[in-house]
Amino acid sequence: MCSYNDSRNLKVIISYNGAAYHGFQIQSNAETIQGVIERALSKLLGESVCINGCSRTDSGVHAREFCFNVRINCTIPCDGFVRGLNSLLPRDIAVHSAIEVADDFHARFSAKAKEYVYVIHNAPIRDVFMTDLAYFYPKQINLNLMEKAAELFIGEHDFSAYCKAESLQTVLSKQHGAIREIYDCHVVDLKQSGRIEIMIRGNGFLHNMVRIIAGTLVYVGDGKLTLDDVRVSLSGGNRDTAGITLPACGLYLNRVIYDTV
Amino acid sequence: MCSYNDSRNLKVIISYNGAAYHGFQIQSNAETIQGVIERALSKLLGESVCINGCSRTDSGVHAREFCFNVRINCTIPCDGFVRGLNSLLPRDIAVHSAIEVADDFHARFSAKAKEYVYVIHNAPIRDVFMTDLAYFYPKQINLNLMEKAAELFIGEHDFSAYCKAESLQTVLSKQHGAIREIYDCHVVDLKQSGRIEIMIRGNGFLHNMVRIIAGTLVYVGDGKLTLDDVRVSLSGGNRDTAGITLPACGLYLNRVIYDTV
Repeated sequence: MCSYNDSRNLKVIISYNGAAYHGFQIQSNAETIQGVIERALSKLLGESVCINGCSRTDSGVHAREFCFNVRINCTIPCDGFVRGLNSLLPRDIAVHSAIEVADDFHARFSAKAKEYVYVIHNAPIRDVFMTDLAYFYPKQINLNLMEKAAELFIGEHDFSAYCKAESLQTVLSKQHGAIREIYDCHVVDLKQSGRIEIMIRGNGFLHNMVRIIAGTLVYVGDGKLTLDDVRVSLSGGNRDTAGITLPACGLYLNRVIYDTV
Repeated sequence: MCSYNDSRNLKVIISYNGAAYHGFQIQSNAETIQGVIERALSKLLGESVCINGCSRTDSGVHAREFCFNVRINCTIPCDGFVRGLNSLLPRDIAVHSAIEVADDFHARFSAKAKEYVYVIHNAPIRDVFMTDLAYFYPKQINLNLMEKAAELFIGEHDFSAYCKAESLQTVLSKQHGAIREIYDCHVVDLKQSGRIEIMIRGNGFLHNMVRIIAGTLVYVGDGKLTLDDVRVSLSGGNRDTAGITLPACGLYLNRVIYDTV
C-alpha cells in the first residue's frame, strides 16, 4: 500500500544487468527489478513506496541509465539515499544518483526521448565474458550497408512492421498508432572488443521495436534484406517485411532524456 | 576409461568464464570445466578421453587462454575439432584453436611460465556488468605505490607468506619449497573502464598466490601496508605478513607459455 500524502519527489538513476530478472515491472510470481528495489526501499525508508519507472524493459534486457521517481516521506538526504539503497540491493543493480525534483516530475510521462543501444558480439569465436551481455553473431557483416540502413530509420515513420505482432492491435487503437519519430540511429564499430553497437534515439518505441530494428540491420549487413526492403518496411509494411527480433540479452536502455532535470 | 594406444596429441586453447563452475579439475559431485569438456569430447569423438589441463584453477576463477592437451584416436581435422567442440560446449566455455603436437607435449609439465591477471573494479559505484568478472573496490587507491610494490615481486623469492595456509606444509615438503621466480609484475590502469589490472608472470604459483599478491598490492595502495612490509613478507615471512586473499571472481589465467608451440 502506497500513500502519497507527502512531501518529496526523488529522481533516481540506476543501472542494472537484467539477465536474472523478468523485466522491470513488478509481477507477483517472478523476480523483477521494480520488486527488488521496492523491497529494498521499504527496508531503507521504513515505509512502503511505489516507484515509477521510465520504461518497462523486457525479461533479460539491461539498462545503463534507467530513471525512476519515487515519492517519500522520509527526510533522508539524497546522498544517504544512494548509499543506503546500494547497500541493500544485489550486485546486479546499482544506484548512481538521486535528486529532489518538482512534484509533477514523472519518470515515464515527463520523458522527452529514450536512447537504446543494441550490442552485437561479432567475432568468429564467442567471448565467454559477454555471455548474457550481447547477441553473438559470428558471421562477417557489411558495416557500411548496416550504417546506410540505419540512416533510413531517422525521421517519422509508421513502425507497424517493427512491433511484436501480439501488441500491434493495441498500438493501432491508440492516438498515434504506430507512428514514432527517430532522432538518431547509427552503428558504432568497436572493433577492438569485437562489438558492434546500434544506437537509436527516439520519442517512443513499440514493443520489441529496437530488437526488430537491430535484426533488420543485421539482415541488411548479411545480404538478406536490401535498403529498398527496409524502405518498404518503414511505410507501414507487415511484420514480415522487417528482419527477425534479436534476443533480449543484447538490448540496453542507454538513457532517458528529460527537458528540465 | 581412457586408453592411449594411439595416435594424435592435440594442444587446445580455450577460454572460460568460471563463475558457474567449481574450478577446472574434474570432481564427481560438482560441475567443473574439465567435466563439461570431457563429456562434450566423448560426444564429438565417440570415445572417452581424459584431458590434461595446464593448471587447476579454483572455483570461480576465469581463463582468457587456458591450454589442455588430449590424446585422441579420431581422425577429425583440427578445424573440425574446434567447430565441433564449440557447438557442444555451453556459452561460457569457448575453444579458440587446436593443433597437433609432439607426443611428449603435456599442457602442465611442458609449461615454462604462466601469466595471471587480477582485475580490480575501482570506481565509486559498482558496474553491474562486471558482476563475477572483477573484484569491486570502491575506495581510492594510490596506483603509484601499488606499482612500486608490484616491482618488489619480480625475481626469486620465498613465497611462504603467499600460500594458502592449509597448503603450505605440502608445498614445503617438495623439492623447491615455496621458492618461485616472478618474471614480471606490474599494474595496468584502465581508467576508462574503471578497472585496474595486476599482471604477473612467473615459473610457478602456490595455491592462492596471485590472489594474495593482489590483496597485498591493494593494501599497499590503501596505506595498510608499506613497501618495507612487502619486502619482509617476501623473505619467507608468515602468511599474516602479507595482505588478504582477494576473491576468485577477479582472477584470470591470462596465458601459458611453452618453449616450442
